[in-house]
Amino acid sequence: MIVTLKISGKFFDDENPTNLEIIKKSVLSLLNSGHRVAIVTGGGGTARKYINLGRKAGIKEAHLDLLGIWASRLNAYLVAFYLGDLAYSKVPESLEEFIEKWGYGKVVVTGGFQPGQSTATVASLVSEATNSDLLVLATNVDGVYDKDPRKFSEARLLSRLSTIELKKILELTQSVNAGTYELLDPLAIKIIERSKIKVLVVNFKNLDKLLDIITGNISIGSLVLPV
Amino acid sequence: MIVTLKISGKFFDDENPTNLEIIKKSVLSLLNSGHRVAIVTGGGGTARKYINLGRKAGIKEAHLDLLGIWASRLNAYLVAFYLGDLAYSKVPESLEEFIEKWGYGKVVVTGGFQPGQSTATVASLVSEATNSDLLVLATNVDGVYDKDPRKFSEARLLSRLSTIELKKILELTQSVNAGTYELLDPLAIKIIERSKIKVLVVNFKNLDKLLDIITGNISIGSLVLPV
Amino acid sequence: MIVTLKISGKFFDDENPTNLEIIKKSVLSLLNSGHRVAIVTGGGGTARKYINLGRKAGIKEAHLDLLGIWASRLNAYLVAFYLGDLAYSKVPESLEEFIEKWGYGKVVVTGGFQPGQSTATVASLVSEATNSDLLVLATNVDGVYDKDPRKFSEARLLSRLSTIELKKILELTQSVNAGTYELLDPLAIKIIERSKIKVLVVNFKNLDKLLDIITGNISIGSLVLPV
Amino acid sequence: MIVTLKISGKFFDDENPTNLEIIKKSVLSLLNSGHRVAIVTGGGGTARKYINLGRKAGIKEAHLDLLGIWASRLNAYLVAFYLGDLAYSKVPESLEEFIEKWGYGKVVVTGGFQPGQSTATVASLVSEATNSDLLVLATNVDGVYDKDPRKFSEARLLSRLSTIELKKILELTQSVNAGTYELLDPLAIKIIERSKIKVLVVNFKNLDKLLDIITGNISIGSLVLPV
Amino acid sequence: MIVTLKISGKFFDDENPTNLEIIKKSVLSLLNSGHRVAIVTGGGGTARKYINLGRKAGIKEAHLDLLGIWASRLNAYLVAFYLGDLAYSKVPESLEEFIEKWGYGKVVVTGGFQPGQSTATVASLVSEATNSDLLVLATNVDGVYDKDPRKFSEARLLSRLSTIELKKILELTQSVNAGTYELLDPLAIKIIERSKIKVLVVNFKNLDKLLDIITGNISIGSLVLPV
Amino acid sequence: MIVTLKISGKFFDDENPTNLEIIKKSVLSLLNSGHRVAIVTGGGGTARKYINLGRKAGIKEAHLDLLGIWASRLNAYLVAFYLGDLAYSKVPESLEEFIEKWGYGKVVVTGGFQPGQSTATVASLVSEATNSDLLVLATNVDGVYDKDPRKFSEARLLSRLSTIELKKILELTQSVNAGTYELLDPLAIKIIERSKIKVLVVNFKNLDKLLDIITGNISIGSLVLPV
Ligand SMILES: Nc1ncnc2c1ncn2[C@@H]1O[C@H](COP(=O)(O)OP(=O)(O)OP(=O)(O)O)[C@@H](O)[C@H]1O
Ligand SMILES: Nc1ncnc2c1ncn2[C@@H]1O[C@H](COP(=O)(O)OP(=O)(O)OP(=O)(O)O)[C@@H](O)[C@H]1O
Ligand SMILES: Nc1ncnc2c1ncn2[C@@H]1O[C@H](COP(=O)(O)OP(=O)(O)OP(=O)(O)O)[C@@H](O)[C@H]1O
Ligand SMILES: Nc1ncnc2c1ncn2[C@@H]1O[C@H](COP(=O)(O)OP(=O)(O)OP(=O)(O)O)[C@@H](O)[C@H]1O
Ligand SMILES: Nc1ncnc2c1ncn2[C@@H]1O[C@H](COP(=O)(O)OP(=O)(O)OP(=O)(O)O)[C@@H](O)[C@H]1O
Ligand SMILES: [Co+2]
Ligand SMILES: [Co+2]
Ligand SMILES: [Co+2]
Ligand SMILES: [Co+2]
Ligand SMILES: [Co+2]
Ligand SMILES: [Co+2]
Ligand SMILES: [Mg+2]
Ligand SMILES: [Mg+2]
Repeated sequence: MIVTLKISGKFFDDENPTNLEIIKKSVLSLLNSGHRVAIVTGGGGTARKYINLGRKAGIKEAHLDLLGIWASRLNAYLVAFYLGDLAYSKVPESLEEFIEKWGYGKVVVTGGFQPGQSTATVASLVSEATNSDLLVLATNVDGVYDKDPRKFSEARLLSRLSTIELKKILELTQSVNAGTYELLDPLAIKIIERSKIKVLVVNFKNLDKLLDIITGNISIGSLVLPV
Repeated sequence: MIVTLKISGKFFDDENPTNLEIIKKSVLSLLNSGHRVAIVTGGGGTARKYINLGRKAGIKEAHLDLLGIWASRLNAYLVAFYLGDLAYSKVPESLEEFIEKWGYGKVVVTGGFQPGQSTATVASLVSEATNSDLLVLATNVDGVYDKDPRKFSEARLLSRLSTIELKKILELTQSVNAGTYELLDPLAIKIIERSKIKVLVVNFKNLDKLLDIITGNISIGSLVLPV
Repeated sequence: MIVTLKISGKFFDDENPTNLEIIKKSVLSLLNSGHRVAIVTGGGGTARKYINLGRKAGIKEAHLDLLGIWASRLNAYLVAFYLGDLAYSKVPESLEEFIEKWGYGKVVVTGGFQPGQSTATVASLVSEATNSDLLVLATNVDGVYDKDPRKFSEARLLSRLSTIELKKILELTQSVNAGTYELLDPLAIKIIERSKIKVLVVNFKNLDKLLDIITGNISIGSLVLPV
Repeated sequence: MIVTLKISGKFFDDENPTNLEIIKKSVLSLLNSGHRVAIVTGGGGTARKYINLGRKAGIKEAHLDLLGIWASRLNAYLVAFYLGDLAYSKVPESLEEFIEKWGYGKVVVTGGFQPGQSTATVASLVSEATNSDLLVLATNVDGVYDKDPRKFSEARLLSRLSTIELKKILELTQSVNAGTYELLDPLAIKIIERSKIKVLVVNFKNLDKLLDIITGNISIGSLVLPV
Repeated sequence: MIVTLKISGKFFDDENPTNLEIIKKSVLSLLNSGHRVAIVTGGGGTARKYINLGRKAGIKEAHLDLLGIWASRLNAYLVAFYLGDLAYSKVPESLEEFIEKWGYGKVVVTGGFQPGQSTATVASLVSEATNSDLLVLATNVDGVYDKDPRKFSEARLLSRLSTIELKKILELTQSVNAGTYELLDPLAIKIIERSKIKVLVVNFKNLDKLLDIITGNISIGSLVLPV
Repeated sequence: MIVTLKISGKFFDDENPTNLEIIKKSVLSLLNSGHRVAIVTGGGGTARKYINLGRKAGIKEAHLDLLGIWASRLNAYLVAFYLGDLAYSKVPESLEEFIEKWGYGKVVVTGGFQPGQSTATVASLVSEATNSDLLVLATNVDGVYDKDPRKFSEARLLSRLSTIELKKILELTQSVNAGTYELLDPLAIKIIERSKIKVLVVNFKNLDKLLDIITGNISIGSLVLPV
């Protein structure tokens, strides 16, 4: 089984190695059971810092996107170096390069690729190129809610939904300003649909149970099915 | 004034150099009046040939996109070599590389960048990165119609419209399968909106009047205004 | 045993996946018997289209060669993507890069390298660098004839000949204009001679019997022996 | 006159664009007077964050250096994008690449190059390669003190000193752990000495007076003379 | 006027800077008169040393060619660094890269490109790509003789000859073993013919008179005319 | 066990393949016992030739370093090509590239990386990045002496010493002029100390006994212990 794991950049924001350990443990459990893993890291606080500073200084959107991409690559290097021999040591800078590195058989860790493309879109392209059975979005909420749970306390968790339902939910919250893409943008969803990729949205702190979730032993988070 | 010129790939499909001559004449007239020009070429028939062959053979979407991108780069090399000293001789393979090459002061010709991104999105990113005053879409119809003019003969040309109106018109005709993006996709429009880029849709055969259109002497095609 | 397989670009000219299937079947039979395979693809109709268009437009020979090389790389990507995990996913752009990629153990697919070098010369350099036991030229005739069989119906097939004889036969038909190199040019033959590479010229449609030919079970095509 | 400007990474640490404006103003005043400028940025807080996190997680020194280098490049991109057309848009990743980019005539902004090399050493190599008349170290103290002024309040500012004196002062405070290089390390000083480069250590907030300092109108900071 | 200057590698073989000075003086005189110059350097003694050592050790021909190419690039770097600001500081590794660098307007210095290609062929490709009016071969004899003048003392200098005559003269002396290409090989001549490039063979020690030769003031060496 | 082997460039100076054979034999014995090997080659006579010629011609130190680095890479290619399939065929040009190549599992051969960095520093960085158990310096003397043995005949060999003692011994003999770094420079020693790398200085002609030395069967040369 092939799994693409998208990790929100916010999990690299403090100077505590616990989150790195969670990632490694989860990756190791998958590898030891014979699965392959691709990892996409978001830009998190570092991205936001440089984008905010740049925007205040008057730098243009395409260049702000590039700052965010370089920040996400810093997170990717952190993960790749921490995984050591398990991972390819160079962070690819385009899907073509990703595909080339993926051919060697190791975990490949990547950040963003191109301005105008969220790391969620990167994750969907990586899922497509690797023929992934599952795209896992590890985030700071327990799954997909009918509203943004950070803004509305009455939001309800959906354990199973279609991409059409997801699109409706996300429609109002989307933006393409650098640094503000959330969860999944319309392009990411289109790619998920064109290649029929299953998506699991799960709380980062449950990553250690990923193998159990995948094998169907337990059911946590939200499963999004392409239509 | 800075102009990004997006040329549909179909204008490289026959073995007649006339279309190349039209492009050169139009570029020269702009350069001679002190403007700067970036060019984005579509993949046209070559892209379609390789994508169709690949799809029949069972190659996956992300890789089909790559074949289409390489085809669009072939068209870009053709234009760059034909422009000779006026153009940068290497076709950039990402927005970062485009920005670097653009710094030298010549015309830069590019094809596609990344799977999941139409050459229309490339053109909008290039417009953004170059701070273009105008994005010109040179195509095989006279402008934006209220319906796809190739399919509906009663379609009416709109000489001026907003991106909101454009989105509504295009909504039904869009697809993200490799090789089937048309005119402008939602992501291209979002980028146009976030950076307030004006778009002119014009018939390829009127490219020789581009300088007159830009300076407001004549009014041809459709002007799309971002909101 | 190591085999370099040079496939004429014309086998990628129509939108039918049969030729791709023939290549894959032939490669698989070799790999499954423990052999290694390098593939060199010609530029075919795509190369001719761009070279003709470019030449009419007045583009110079070295740049026409480059257009042809990019076209041959498009064919190489098609083959590499179709072979999937069997092949290295990036098409090398020089012999140095080829050698590097070859080190990973997969099939490596390449198009042209440099202006002034036919893909036949590329194939002979690849044979040399990989220490190939055999260079197979898959073409649209049944082998080497004493005259060009497309022009002279009385041409006689030679089942075994030396490079000296081959040179005499080819002498009159050679040209170095971009896109017109035929079968084997003098430089390709010199490289074959300096490294004592055996060459098999065989009809493309017999590629499925390659394993049998190599193991000496059947004898088809022409064997060219270096002197 | 050619000036290499080394800016401590800590000046990119808060989300206020003032420091960027100081840099741009200072660079513009030099360019407008006909001078050329190279810029080297330190890694600052971003480097320290990733190095600390990585070290706690057990990542090795050479790889921690790489994280710090990528962080310093993020600062370099921020400066390069903010300078816009004045600067080369790509941050070089080695001295060879720096030299190549420097040839185009623009400001070139660089971060770190190699593990084991502080950005101060990078700045001395850049001074050497560009044949700089002056290496300016813009830092958070008013110049070189006879002791580290952050630790000893009785430290005295030296307005003029030799590299021999500097070496003695710095001897005790040096370390080669990733992220802890200070002001100038022994290798940076050796390079300064072998190519006889003059060094000016100056408070960052006085950068706007750089042109006056250079032309000898005013005298601020410490001048270090190679022996 | 555009001039490609091919300098035999043997002029970099001793530790005396005189030959570098001759090259610089000759280049400067051409540049100051408004001409453009491309330089191709041979591998000389360094190439021969590594090729001989490698061949004795059993390294294969294609790899020996690569050693010779790296040696010729060392000579190219020496010339480029010595020319300083007049020359592009990076030695291109392929014709594509050469063309890209040539676009910046400086002297570009290159060594070899690809195994199986002599630096004489490189020089003819460079002449073609730059649209050179003249290819100058600076060598250790006074021009083309009717026999190899190093072997036959009765050899007669030819002040004017066609490429057909040249081919006949060189026919017997050619070889494609790495490191043994002489003056002009058949492929170099074919390229010269297909693009109608004039060739001047001249003694290296007369390079200082190059401007006079080009402007027709004096007549030295042999002029080879393509047919 | 992981071993980094630094070979002085002077062992590639004559046209005799014996030294290559010694290296291969020693590498093979290590690989066959399950160890991994990284190799760093010095620049030797080729470096000195180009650096001397360049310095006489007035080329600057940073550029002379680059010439020396290219020469050391020529030696690295020679070793890599001679080792054939055992080694990675491309010589890395930075530590980042080295780390990437090292991930494939083969021997990686490298020359210099950056101006201002001796190949001894490269070797210490490579030891650090590969987590080497031992850094072996193969040189033309029998180990570390209390004085430079080439200059003082009364010099005494030290079979065991600390990096502090080594620093004292080497202090007077060090220089940072291109081409004159000796044995170990201060930066190399600092890296050895920060990552606690054991160093063995051994006569090149004893390389064939390396496996025995490593396994503690025999004791030759000097062991330097980091403090
Ligand atoms: N309907 C919804 N259900 C769940 N989450 C939602 C929903 N709408 C918006 N969100 C927001 O999406 C966020 C998840 O996106 P996340 O931050 O993990 O990815 P990211 O933005 O790409 O990360 P980063 O940019 O920091 O790397 C949640 O914190 C939540 O606030
Ligand atoms: N409402 C509309 N108005 C105008 N054109 C439309 C509309 N809807 C669809 N189209 C189609 O869009 C096409 C223009 O897209 P065009 O082919 O120029 O770009 P492209 O698809 O990127 O080109 P290529 O992929 O061949 O390089 C027209 O031929 C037209 O059929
Ligand atoms: N004798 C001294 N005189 C002046 N400063 C000294 C001295 N000794 C140590 N320092 C320290 O050197 C520091 C300057 O180094 P600075 O932080 O500017 O460069 P840096 O460490 O390379 O920056 P960064 O790594 O954050 O990019 C001062 O803050 C000061 O504390
Ligand atoms: N008929 C001929 N006329 C002139 N020179 C000839 C002839 N035949 C052979 N040569 C040889 O060609 C040599 C010139 O080639 P030259 O060494 O300049 O180029 P090169 O071999 O490419 O240089 P390098 O490989 O050393 O860089 C002369 O020294 C001469 O001996
Ligand atoms: N105390 C010492 N003990 C041993 N060797 C010493 C000492 N001091 C100086 N040396 C010198 O160091 C030399 C070893 O350095 P070596 O030439 O092997 O490395 P290198 O200079 O990096 O090689 P290259 O630059 O030629 O590649 C010996 O030849 C010796 O003369
Ligand atoms: Co986000
Ligand atoms: Co289209
Ligand atoms: Co052909
Ligand atoms: Co610091
Ligand atoms: Co020669
Ligand atoms: Co030395
Ligand atoms: Mg994000
Ligand atoms: Mg050395």
